[in-house]
Amino acid sequence: MKNRLFLCPYRGLFLVLSGLFLFPTFGSAQTKEYQVDAQFIDKIYDQSLTDGRCYEWLEFLSLNVGHRLSGSPSAAKAVEWGKSMLDTLGLDSVWLQPCMVPHWVRGEKEQVKAIGSKKGNSFPMAALALGGSIPGKVQAEVVEIKSWDQLETLGSKALKGKIVFFNRPMDPTKIRTFEAYGGCVDQRVGGASRAAKYGAVAVLVRSVTLRIDDYPHTGTMIYDSLYQKIPAAAISTVAAEKLSKALKDDPALKVSMQLYCKTLPDEPSFNVIGEIRGSERPNDVILVGGHLDSWDVGHGAHDDGAGVVQCMDVLRVLKTLGYKPRHTIRCVMFMNEENGLRGGKAYAKEAERKGEFPLASIESDAGGFTPRGFSFEGEESVFGSFFDKLMTFQPLFEPYGLRFTKGGSGADISPLRGMKGLLSGYSPDSQRYFDYHHAETDTFDKVNKRELELGTASMAALVFLIDKYGL
Amino acid sequence: MKNRLFLCPYRGLFLVLSGLFLFPTFGSAQTKEYQVDAQFIDKIYDQSLTDGRCYEWLEFLSLNVGHRLSGSPSAAKAVEWGKSMLDTLGLDSVWLQPCMVPHWVRGEKEQVKAIGSKKGNSFPMAALALGGSIPGKVQAEVVEIKSWDQLETLGSKALKGKIVFFNRPMDPTKIRTFEAYGGCVDQRVGGASRAAKYGAVAVLVRSVTLRIDDYPHTGTMIYDSLYQKIPAAAISTVAAEKLSKALKDDPALKVSMQLYCKTLPDEPSFNVIGEIRGSERPNDVILVGGHLDSWDVGHGAHDDGAGVVQCMDVLRVLKTLGYKPRHTIRCVMFMNEENGLRGGKAYAKEAERKGEFPLASIESDAGGFTPRGFSFEGEESVFGSFFDKLMTFQPLFEPYGLRFTKGGSGADISPLRGMKGLLSGYSPDSQRYFDYHHAETDTFDKVNKRELELGTASMAALVFLIDKYGL
Repeated sequence: MKNRLFLCPYRGLFLVLSGLFLFPTFGSAQTKEYQVDAQFIDKIYDQSLTDGRCYEWLEFLSLNVGHRLSGSPSAAKAVEWGKSMLDTLGLDSVWLQPCMVPHWVRGEKEQVKAIGSKKGNSFPMAALALGGSIPGKVQAEVVEIKSWDQLETLGSKALKGKIVFFNRPMDPTKIRTFEAYGGCVDQRVGGASRAAKYGAVAVLVRSVTLRIDDYPHTGTMIYDSLYQKIPAAAISTVAAEKLSKALKDDPALKVSMQLYCKTLPDEPSFNVIGEIRGSERPNDVILVGGHLDSWDVGHGAHDDGAGVVQCMDVLRVLKTLGYKPRHTIRCVMFMNEENGLRGGKAYAKEAERKGEFPLASIESDAGGFTPRGFSFEGEESVFGSFFDKLMTFQPLFEPYGLRFTKGGSGADISPLRGMKGLLSGYSPDSQRYFDYHHAETDTFDKVNKRELELGTASMAALVFLIDKYGL
Repeated sequence: MKNRLFLCPYRGLFLVLSGLFLFPTFGSAQTKEYQVDAQFIDKIYDQSLTDGRCYEWLEFLSLNVGHRLSGSPSAAKAVEWGKSMLDTLGLDSVWLQPCMVPHWVRGEKEQVKAIGSKKGNSFPMAALALGGSIPGKVQAEVVEIKSWDQLETLGSKALKGKIVFFNRPMDPTKIRTFEAYGGCVDQRVGGASRAAKYGAVAVLVRSVTLRIDDYPHTGTMIYDSLYQKIPAAAISTVAAEKLSKALKDDPALKVSMQLYCKTLPDEPSFNVIGEIRGSERPNDVILVGGHLDSWDVGHGAHDDGAGVVQCMDVLRVLKTLGYKPRHTIRCVMFMNEENGLRGGKAYAKEAERKGEFPLASIESDAGGFTPRGFSFEGEESVFGSFFDKLMTFQPLFEPYGLRFTKGGSGADISPLRGMKGLLSGYSPDSQRYFDYHHAETDTFDKVNKRELELGTASMAALVFLIDKYGL
């Protein structure tokens, strides 16, 4: 059986690759400084995995504060809690940064049911009003829509007076679930006005999740001021499948829906901020952030309790290890990512006013799952070929399984884009995120302690390297 | 802010790296054949993610068969179920391969409690007899042991007539949890005899998990025939911490334990096997396998229901896509991985008798989590520099986030080592595995559908490439 034939037809690659993948060991290229950095990163991971606080903080935030939609009493409680936790960390400063936030309330439980024109074809559906929806009571026939083209083609003739049911599912073949999410969240955000344009009286949207279960997923929707505002609700994927099937048998089926939600006047709220002041370039800020607000269901554990507790713990880990940063390292718990981005906007405005440079801003808002990497967006005009430079750090993350990519960062830090600092999104494994996203099921028990702590360590390691070497 | 200084001291690396990490796009090195393979692998993932059967199979195995320790009626039911599922797939042959297996039964619920010499220091402890333990009723003082050195140093003088409590925890700083497991499972497997050597009357072992909770984790233990057999049980990590603390306050504390387990005569059982016959080299076998037996708690969902349903689905996916293999592709559901490896040994013996060559054997026995890669062990005397050759496949797995490493494979396929084929372990993310391993909590609801299906696809893709190109 010796010398078995190896038939690989792309043998050219082999020559290139065989050297390449031995790389993590570095051979002679491995400098002493590299080893020093690797050792410090090891300490960061050890600290987080043996003495991490993020998990107990998340437990408190989830179970004692609970979900915390902008403007709600629990959001105010979350602000108070966040500041009190930062106050315990011995940082150089901790403060609240004011912003006015929208105040939308769900009111009583939504009532959504199918009323068949045939006997035995009526059933209730698990539903959640979409954030920002007007209230309303509607009963009408239903038109199922799978694409914008289909909507435009049908037009007023078919849609006037009807409830439009957007039922385009997430594409399960996308390996990165955020890509699948991006491929259908437009129905939730813009569906109501695009249907109202043709005289629809309400919309139902299939929950934006890959799971087939009976939990509806809410999320923000935005009215286009050109058109009539109409009520909008998400239904569970089980309800969406059932409704779709029922409509095929019974096209005259109606849906009755009643939403009790409303928008109240804006409320004052805050970003919660803490920092370790930089010794050499205090005006250059390395930010780690997540958002403190959540939707008004579940615990907001993965979205984005995980992100805020990780960012707090990044500062605690570095401080505990005695690290003295050259740049200012700042933790920001943004308010109102979910339905307004008011915190992110207020933060950017204030940073600009103070003449700070947001050297690097890292957002954790993709859940508390096992780290897979970071994505980066930056300005070549400022940093040169910044990605190639960042790539020199990547081998230090190989033992922890992280890869770097070019790509988007995070919503809260997006208003900083104009200031041309580096923006980065922490990227944990995405497979389970949309199972829980904006649903009753986004609870503390869905978060794994080690996965959360590994995320803290990964961000702390990146912060350390950017602080040590600049960009 | 232009031309900001980049201070990286290991600038030499940068030059090497900057080219290196652009690699996944391949540039001119990307051959047409490579693209053909990438497209077929895409189809494999799409098939698994849109039409996968593994999750519904696992649901049935978990909820309708349940846990299935070797020799039990439910293990027999699992064999019957496995064969009946393979029979539906239109394979070239499906058969049962006999083997005799151990038959250990737990009996009534274990009773383990601390009896303080001081008032208020008594408490019950969540416990599970270790697989293979003798029954027994013991009440004795307790000696806590953290290392083998400590055990040897204490010796008979301190241990005679005592219950030895092995309380060395898993090391949370190991990023790969299997490494941490490897660092303390010796207490469970060999602790009883090593304590019996010094006259101990029973052992309690801290559950081999990183979680602190109240679920004990069982697992196999092996008596050394040189020493007296003594009863052995695992206690939950919560109980272990509590007992450790109580012993510090109250060294005269006793533990009373009663185990009802026993070993019955060996029972006949089976490996369940199905195959697609190879068109060119039918005697060269590419095996995908997992083990059908489990411990007698929970559902055995991650360990190893996940592995067996993935392996079945690998054959189904390839068949559904119309793939005609050159080599024989075989799914093996091994019996008795947990406490004897009798199925693995019977399989290897039969393969040798038939003069087969086990070209590549891939085992999935690390849970149904998101795929991270494969590890490989092989014989350079047979394959030459096999790992470098396999590395030419790795770029095809980049879009799916998998990396190849050299390393161990799986227990069931280890008896094939003498036949010098390639052995591979499918490596999903390991962070959550030991939370559930051998415990009441290893249930179907802990398995995520997409993560499971991605594993099926990853293995099918590797099988396809090895079949197409040989080794």
